[in-house]
This record gives sequence, C-alpha cells and structure tokens, in this order.
Amino acid sequence: RPSDFHQMPSSIRKGGFCPFCAGNEHTTPPEILAYRERGGPPNVSGWHLRVVPNKFPALRIEGDLDKAGEGIYDKMSGIGAHEVIIETPSHDDTLLTLPEKRMEDILWAYRDRMEDLKKDPRLQYVLVFKNEGEIAGATLEHSHSQLIALPIVPKQVLEELDGARQHYKLKERCIYCDILRQELTTETRIVSENPRFVSFAPFAPRFPFETWIVPKDHVSYYPGKPYDYAYLAQILQDTLKRIAGVLNNPPYNYLIHTSPFREEMNEYYHWHLEINPILTRMAGFERGSGFYINPTSPEEAAKFLREAVL
Amino acid sequence: RPSDFHQMPSSIRKGGFCPFCAGNEHTTPPEILAYRERGGPPNVSGWHLRVVPNKFPALRIEGDLDKAGEGIYDKMSGIGAHEVIIETPSHDDTLLTLPEKRMEDILWAYRDRMEDLKKDPRLQYVLVFKNEGEIAGATLEHSHSQLIALPIVPKQVLEELDGARQHYKLKERCIYCDILRQELTTETRIVSENPRFVSFAPFAPRFPFETWIVPKDHVSYYPGKPYDYAYLAQILQDTLKRIAGVLNNPPYNYLIHTSPFREEMNEYYHWHLEINPILTRMAGFERGSGFYINPTSPEEAAKFLREAVL
Repeated sequence: RPSDFHQMPSSIRKGGFCPFCAGNEHTTPPEILAYRERGGPPNVSGWHLRVVPNKFPALRIEGDLDKAGEGIYDKMSGIGAHEVIIETPSHDDTLLTLPEKRMEDILWAYRDRMEDLKKDPRLQYVLVFKNEGEIAGATLEHSHSQLIALPIVPKQVLEELDGARQHYKLKERCIYCDILRQELTTETRIVSENPRFVSFAPFAPRFPFETWIVPKDHVSYYPGKPYDYAYLAQILQDTLKRIAGVLNNPPYNYLIHTSPFREEMNEYYHWHLEINPILTRMAGFERGSGFYINPTSPEEAAKFLREAVL
Repeated sequence: RPSDFHQMPSSIRKGGFCPFCAGNEHTTPPEILAYRERGGPPNVSGWHLRVVPNKFPALRIEGDLDKAGEGIYDKMSGIGAHEVIIETPSHDDTLLTLPEKRMEDILWAYRDRMEDLKKDPRLQYVLVFKNEGEIAGATLEHSHSQLIALPIVPKQVLEELDGARQHYKLKERCIYCDILRQELTTETRIVSENPRFVSFAPFAPRFPFETWIVPKDHVSYYPGKPYDYAYLAQILQDTLKRIAGVLNNPPYNYLIHTSPFREEMNEYYHWHLEINPILTRMAGFERGSGFYINPTSPEEAAKFLREAVL
C-alpha cells in the first residue's frame, strides 16, 4: 500500500534484538544448513555459520511455474528460494575481522547451497549477493549474505553469457581468459593477485572502484573444481580491506556470476565475483539509459587500492 | 579521489543562493535557448524557460569521437552535450504548480533542443530526463530537467528497439500499439487518458507505481508530428499530481524514450515517457541480476492513481 513506502530510506535496526545472534536461533525459520565444529542438534548455538530461509522471501519454493500468456504478455509464478547466509554468530564481526578460515567457510556455504538447489529441476540459477551497509540495501546489521534461486537466468548473466558465446564462436577462446591475459600484461588495473585469483578494476567499470575477482584458470561454474576457496577467501578479504581502507568503510554489494544450471561446465563462460562500492547515486540518466557515469578511472581506482596500507 | 565521495548521500542545497532563479542569469553558462514572451536580450530576466549547458557536464561537445581499440577493448571519446532545462524563473514553482501552458513550453523545449542537436552528425540520441528530489538524484532544488546528447544509442533504448523490430518482423505491427490496444481493452492498468495520450502502469513494472505515458497514435519520434504537446502537458501534469497525492510527494525520475536520430520515422518503435517514483532501494540482487523486486502489482498501483482525488 502507498503508505508503506513512507519509511524509505529505511534504516538498519541498530542495537536491540538481533535474530541472527547466537542464542536467538529460535527466532529465525529453521536452518537449512549450519557448520558446527563439534556437531550437535540444529537451531541451537554452537554453529559458526548458519543458512536460514529469508523471513520475507522474494520468491517461494512451493508450487508450479504455471507459465502462461495474458494477451501479448508472458508470465510465470515466482518460484524459487531466498536464503540468508549468517556469516558469524557474533554481532560485531564483519568480513574484515573474521579469520580467513571463516571467510573460506562462507564461500563453501555458497557452493553447498548452489549444489543442493541445483537438484530442483525448476531452478536455473542461484544468485549469491551481499548488501553491506544501509545504503547498499542491508536491513539487518549482523553480517550476512543472501542467495536467490531463480527459475530463469538473470538478465545480466544472460547478456554476459551471450557475449561470451559470441566471442567463443569467433575466437574459440573464453573472453574472460582473454581479459585476464591482457590485464596481467598491462598491470595498470590490477589490485592484487594470488596463485589462483586476480582482483582488478574492469576496463569500463559502471561504478567508481568497482572491482572484479576472477579465477586465473578457466572455471565456468562457481561450485566446479578445483575448489580454490581458501585462495578466494584470501583475495576477497584482501580486496575488501583495501576498499574499506581507501574509501573509509563504504557501503558495498558483491555478487557472484556463474554459468547457469544445466550448462555448468563450458568453454565460453568464466565465473567471477563483482564488488561494487556504493559511492554515487543512480538517477534518471542511469535508469533511462542503462549507461553509468563513473567519475573515477579504473586505472586510478586500481592504483589507490593497490597502494592501500593493510 | 576517494575522499571526494565522503559527502554521499549528497544533500540538496536549500535556501541560500540559487543560480537558476531570475536575476542570477550571469551565474550559469550562457543560455542556449530561452522562451521570452516579450523578447529581449539573452542572459537577463524576462524569460519563463531557459536552457543552459550543465556546469559539470558528463559529456563535452568539443572534439572527435576517436574510436579506437585497446587490445580486446573498444573505446571512444565522451563527445556529447549535457544541458539543463530551467523550467521556471521562480524558485517555488514545481511541475505540479505551473500553469498547463508552462508545462507545454517545457515539452516544446525538449523538442527544440532535440531537433537542434540532431544537426550534429556525431550524435545519435538525446535522453531527456528529470530528477525530482534528492533521492532521485537532484542536486539543486529549483525545478529543472536535463538532457544528455550521446554519440551512441543508450543500452535500454537499444533493447527496446531490438524487441520492437523483432515484433514488427513477425507481426508487421508496432508492439506499443499492440500494448495500448490491450491496455485500453483490459482497463485495469489505466491511470488516465485524454484524446491523444494514455497513462498506465506497464504489465511488468520494475518499480512500484512506475507509470508510462504513450501517444495513442503511432508516433516513433518525440519531436515528430503531430505536435500534441498541449495534450501531453495535460496528462503528464495530471499523472504527476496523482503520484504526488497518493504517495505523498515522492522523489521521482521521468525520462523520454524515442527513436534515435537517423531512424526518426519508422513503423516499429513508439516514443513514450516513463515515470519512476523512487520508493524502494536498489541492492545487490538488482545490481547483479538486472531483475527488479516490485512489491506493488501494477493493477493495484493503477487503481490507487486512478482513484486519486485531485
């Protein structure tokens, strides 16, 4: 209803009761997955990572797709899943303060949930994303990420897949592998790297300080082998610390783009993680054009992040 | 530089000096166009509408396109124009309070600027848009809209053009004409209409209370005949008043989608104006998927707007 929108911009509930804190397990929907060092029953303390259904889901798992036409329009039901990955039992931890091993667990949880949701033949894609900070869309302060499982491939992934397929058809090479080769040679847009991953500012970033993390080897599907989540944890945490240091803890989103279910392993697409600090506002021009005005060159952004003191 | 982003979210300068007010003409760049009832010299008071270059332009008119490759990447110079349409000399007027004749003048100014910019062979498109309210991206309080002239067609317009061409190839009909026919029959998503225009909630809106205004006759190009700007002024003002009433003066963007230069008159595309009240926040899911979660059905939104007391 119209009056429900009046609170916008909604503010994060600070202090007070937190449903994600250890001890409050009974206030969330029953857990789907939890990592417990010493085992133990579900929905009680003792976990260090916990996945629960979102209490206010964008999509629901029950029902049929019911694809139908309505005159010239097409529609289908909002079938899917919407889950919350509670990254730590402690209210004060963030991805910047968690031990690297805990960061790695979060990345494993993303994988475990994707592989489980893949079994549902109605689902085609799982989008993993994190909203950090109120302006980035977070409504709870306690560190968490989310996933939404979808019955169709997201528009932006579809566009990347189409472009990648076209490139592959022409060159018989993965375009992301080509990009990596050029970036590692040029070096001006590199933020950091380790034996398995590169973190860099993409050539034409939509947002200031937009940063991508891409596996050096060709891997099309996030849950696909090799499971380099220890290296990913290292570079993700390193990159987030650089962004936090240079930009004074800005709000940010990150998200994972991967090949969809049923075409997991392929030669043309390359999974990656995109980090978008929220520093500028979307306005009429962006909404109407699909173009983004970015005042910071990727070379400058990368230089600031590369030279950050950690 | 990183520290320049710290002010975000930037706030509108309230009170104090306003460069758009009558009497302050010398503080803007020299005017490109002005409507003066009794004529008179440029850049002094006496106007009721004034177009000036944006003092902080996203694109500049000087130079060559310099299209070039950089390894596998493509680039070109940021050639274009960025102008501000100052809609009224008075600081306190808004589109809701202006006389209908003044609203019509604004719509004529959009046309005049498009037709003038069309003469530049480097330009392919002019995006007209309005940011109303701080959250919608406005940085000055005084009522104004903007235009950005581009050397390429915006992504979102390109997608609409591609879809429209595909529909035309299959059906030999304009898809927007088909949509209008269905909407006028169904009636549930209609907000208002007059002899020349329909205002309605589109079938699958991205945003709550998103509303489109579409000419009833097939007209592909905004500056094209018939010049129905009096009717457009009526329905645009009517729709904005309904939105303001029902949603308590929300921030909003509107923007015009039209056929690009060099294919102005065609059978497949249909210019239209999109109004997006800003009621929800873009977060990681939207940024990563290109999908939008909209809690309000278009039928409900249209009903609220249709029944608004004006």
